[in-house]
Amino acid sequence: MSVRPLLAIDWGTTNRRVYRIEDGAVTATERDALGVTAVSDFAGELAAIRARFGDLPVLMAGMVGSTIGWREARYVPAPAGLEDLDQNLLRIDERTAIVPGVSFSDGVRGDVMRGEEVQLLGAVAAGLTPPDALLVQPGTHCKWVEMEGARIARFTTAMTGELFALVRAHGILSAQLGADVVLVDAFRDGVREGAKRDLTGSLFGIRAAKLLGLRGDADAASFASGLIIGADVAARVVEHPFETAYILADPVLGSLYAAAIEVNGRGATIIDSQAAFVAGIFRIGASLS
Amino acid sequence: MSVRPLLAIDWGTTNRRVYRIEDGAVTATERDALGVTAVSDFAGELAAIRARFGDLPVLMAGMVGSTIGWREARYVPAPAGLEDLDQNLLRIDERTAIVPGVSFSDGVRGDVMRGEEVQLLGAVAAGLTPPDALLVQPGTHCKWVEMEGARIARFTTAMTGELFALVRAHGILSAQLGADVVLVDAFRDGVREGAKRDLTGSLFGIRAAKLLGLRGDADAASFASGLIIGADVAARVVEHPFETAYILADPVLGSLYAAAIEVNGRGATIIDSQAAFVAGIFRIGASLS
Repeated sequence: MSVRPLLAIDWGTTNRRVYRIEDGAVTATERDALGVTAVSDFAGELAAIRARFGDLPVLMAGMVGSTIGWREARYVPAPAGLEDLDQNLLRIDERTAIVPGVSFSDGVRGDVMRGEEVQLLGAVAAGLTPPDALLVQPGTHCKWVEMEGARIARFTTAMTGELFALVRAHGILSAQLGADVVLVDAFRDGVREGAKRDLTGSLFGIRAAKLLGLRGDADAASFASGLIIGADVAARVVEHPFETAYILADPVLGSLYAAAIEVNGRGATIIDSQAAFVAGIFRIGASLS
Repeated sequence: MSVRPLLAIDWGTTNRRVYRIEDGAVTATERDALGVTAVSDFAGELAAIRARFGDLPVLMAGMVGSTIGWREARYVPAPAGLEDLDQNLLRIDERTAIVPGVSFSDGVRGDVMRGEEVQLLGAVAAGLTPPDALLVQPGTHCKWVEMEGARIARFTTAMTGELFALVRAHGILSAQLGADVVLVDAFRDGVREGAKRDLTGSLFGIRAAKLLGLRGDADAASFASGLIIGADVAARVVEHPFETAYILADPVLGSLYAAAIEVNGRGATIIDSQAAFVAGIFRIGASLS
């Protein structure tokens, strides 16, 4: 494994995080809102990053490698491990590269990820999760990933966060869903409602509860979040039978998913997703000249 | 039953339909976009309608009786029949009234309707459906109603049409969903996917199918509609076990629901929803002086 310093960039749609990694440890980091949709001159951005963090090899992951990013990196088909990502880097030049995404297809259903693969494989490589485990990355598009032998074996993406954002911003429920989502009883009640796996029916129940005075709007956003996350979790309990899920998320979102998983009778462990990213990108970066 | 002429107004959020009913038959009708959200002077509108259609008793139903309408009519609790609506009319004056809505609560879950009750009870009264049957009113908010003894016994509203409209107009799938929804194989494939009752997962599959080249976008809107309608139907097959559902809808939307119900192994019969409305409002109007 290389001990050479490296700059790693987790470059998503709306955010970007830069890390300088030396001897496997982060010695400088910075997060800003310059996601790929806010950038047009990627080469110029990269030169500015090297000017601030050091003139080092750079490894990028995330939407920077998509059709809306700098250059389109391929999807490596699952099962995929760190070595598969390493062997399929998209080289911009001899010391600058983009990590490929991962695809899954069983001939009927297909799925894709781009950016999450580094966290997932890093979590296992760093011993934060077992080599055979179910990992969860909550968010706008929540990934549920079965790891087998420290490789990404199969996965499902659920549009959980996006669906909540849509009903909160638009449509008939939006006036009721302005409050913050917090881990209260109403959230867990929503998770139980979500376990019926009847989202179209349960969502209207939020409006009916208001009209009939059954539930106040103070808790409606927490209930709705619990409902949508709960429907996601309940479907995954059937699709990927598991005892414990390892959640890669910040503590706030992670604790909501952990509660939803526990209401469904399974265990959950929250993993530091930044530590997982750094562990993964550092190992891939070992091959970068 | 009165043989006096009557004006009936099906006055919804975005549309309005006026009928002159004489001896139980429609002798004039007009539909326009003057739903309650487009009207502020309801008394003036009503005077204009009487000027055009005749100075007759007027019976209104729908969102005109809601908080966003003219005056708020109550919800009559289910079980509710035509006589319960009749006895709970909101009188504006001695020859002008609004039909109440219907609510349902089993102590845990609640639901409401406003406007649909006239169609439902009219369909049964006119012999278009049996007195014990499951009726479906597809739309933005789809109603699934168990009729028992010619009364509304219990019902569930699903946010089916609204959810499709949200993912079509906003969010990551919108660019793929521009085509018209038609009753093609892709619609039925969507219904089968929807039967998994995993909407958050299945919706992302539409994007993955595009990125992996598994399905062209020409059929994506039909697939997505089938998926969301199919999830609604599959949940209802469990919630209200039924052999045949009676669909109150226009032929286009009705045929989509009929196909989704048939893919789920049940039968479907499409009923003329306007005829049902007229049959219901005419019977309620018999009590209007």
